[in-house]
Amino acid sequence: MNIDLIEAAAVRLKGHARRTPMLTSPFVDEIAGRRVFLKTEALQHTGSFKFRGAWSALSALTDNALKAGVIAISSGNHAQGVALAAREHGTSAVIIMPADAPVMKIENTKALGAEVVLYDRETEDRDEIGARLSEERGLTLVKPFDEPQVIAGQGSVGLEIAEQAAELGANASEVLVCCGGGGLTSGIALALEAKAPELTIRPVEPEGFDDVTRSLVSGRIERNAQVSGSLCDAIITQQPGNITFPILHRLCGPGLVVPEEDCLRAMVVAFARLKIVLEPGGAIALAAALYHGDQIAGDDVIAVASGGNVDADVFQMALEKYGDAT
Amino acid sequence: MNIDLIEAAAVRLKGHARRTPMLTSPFVDEIAGRRVFLKTEALQHTGSFKFRGAWSALSALTDNALKAGVIAISSGNHAQGVALAAREHGTSAVIIMPADAPVMKIENTKALGAEVVLYDRETEDRDEIGARLSEERGLTLVKPFDEPQVIAGQGSVGLEIAEQAAELGANASEVLVCCGGGGLTSGIALALEAKAPELTIRPVEPEGFDDVTRSLVSGRIERNAQVSGSLCDAIITQQPGNITFPILHRLCGPGLVVPEEDCLRAMVVAFARLKIVLEPGGAIALAAALYHGDQIAGDDVIAVASGGNVDADVFQMALEKYGDAT
Repeated sequence: MNIDLIEAAAVRLKGHARRTPMLTSPFVDEIAGRRVFLKTEALQHTGSFKFRGAWSALSALTDNALKAGVIAISSGNHAQGVALAAREHGTSAVIIMPADAPVMKIENTKALGAEVVLYDRETEDRDEIGARLSEERGLTLVKPFDEPQVIAGQGSVGLEIAEQAAELGANASEVLVCCGGGGLTSGIALALEAKAPELTIRPVEPEGFDDVTRSLVSGRIERNAQVSGSLCDAIITQQPGNITFPILHRLCGPGLVVPEEDCLRAMVVAFARLKIVLEPGGAIALAAALYHGDQIAGDDVIAVASGGNVDADVFQMALEKYGDAT
Repeated sequence: MNIDLIEAAAVRLKGHARRTPMLTSPFVDEIAGRRVFLKTEALQHTGSFKFRGAWSALSALTDNALKAGVIAISSGNHAQGVALAAREHGTSAVIIMPADAPVMKIENTKALGAEVVLYDRETEDRDEIGARLSEERGLTLVKPFDEPQVIAGQGSVGLEIAEQAAELGANASEVLVCCGGGGLTSGIALALEAKAPELTIRPVEPEGFDDVTRSLVSGRIERNAQVSGSLCDAIITQQPGNITFPILHRLCGPGLVVPEEDCLRAMVVAFARLKIVLEPGGAIALAAALYHGDQIAGDDVIAVASGGNVDADVFQMALEKYGDAT
């Protein structure tokens, strides 16, 4: 894993992934107590950064492998990314999704032409299902994070952050990134190591799912006790990956752990002040910037808003709770 | 009014206004029955295109006029645009707003440092109030639409549409633009006349407030009977302007008239599929593309999403009504 792989992925992504905007608002700055630069990957195709990694992985396959089709395991955002990337590459995708994933993510994945196989998070082993289907049908497994070409695709977010932070005159010391398995975080960390080494990456996780934060402290891969039960469904991966963790350990500052309620409040701030739709997990880095600024260094801060695939009822609940308070 | 004024405004706006993204979604295309390219001015500073015209007007003032301060009359989006542009120019702004404007717009305008004067749409003459305050305090009136430098600023949206449509390979014949007083529509029309003359501009208005559509038919300025009572508060101006109408008449195709309910449905589509927040008036061109495609020509269509300043309760209502249907 190195910067060359990320730059090569960025070339393959050109004209296919969006260069998403970096947004600011004086109202957001006032809450945060410093300027906040929000990299809005919710505006990426399929509503999250995952399209980048999926496109990167598929575009790196041999013609024969591409023709045979791909398979992916995902709670939803990686699923949609792989489904769309497969359709645009003219091939087929099978997606293994937890039965409790947001309805919208399951429906969208199907509508993008993928075959969806549901499993039970508590009782079934998704990796076993994936390995079996992959072998039976000759499909290439596109892992959600612990895969060099996927990390390289997500790392293209970091290349853009380096450019946009300079264009906008951001005087930041830290980049806050929501962290599940660490694909996005490690990709951004590698990109910024090469392009903006003055920036430290801080992984952000929901309370109760702070495997990366604890792993960074102990220096070895720690697991979450729970495997479900968070509104931040996109980032409750059980543990960092074997490829991602050494990168995170080498390059990241301490993790930040944020209560779920702060994610709902941040969703409403993004609605009111930036006019973008974020899902709870996609709002967690913004939540850290807004409500946990005492743990952050620097005049300005950069935060990644990673996804916006939220069901209408969850969004309504957030507006109901916090719509008057922003 | 000509293209040179628009290009000069675009130069003054560079580094101050955002080049907003042009977004697409296969799900939106499926509903519309053609590809839809959405120019998302809701992501502009202050949540609407109005910041462009305000910045253009203020940056064209003499130093003395700028120092004395500005005054504006607005239901909310122009208000916020002028307030922020004034603050960034280091001067003061007085804003005359209808008392029934969305709470968020009034509050935001105050928070951006402007002095807000409220009036009653039904009983008071806002122009009289504006003229009086302007004279008493020596303030320059920044009109919301019938002012060349304001039209020039809004026209910069058209320059970007021409570039982005080419970049994205849009094969469109028409550009749908929400239309109140016609500042945005006439600015875009002039820009595209010069840069993409193959595109016809179609103004879009809410039912009951179709003054521009009727004016285009009759060839003279027609007025709306109602002056309030629409969720599309940003675009219920009573009649097109003396400067804007001749431009609209020369360059626009027939107007499109859309029921308010379609705007709410389009807001939910934008939420679910593009991850952006639109206000009802800001969603009306998308609503025309989605639900009135039989009145539109071309393989693809371009629509302008002009603003996102919507109160949480209106957005909740839209999600409640149509959140399950997209």
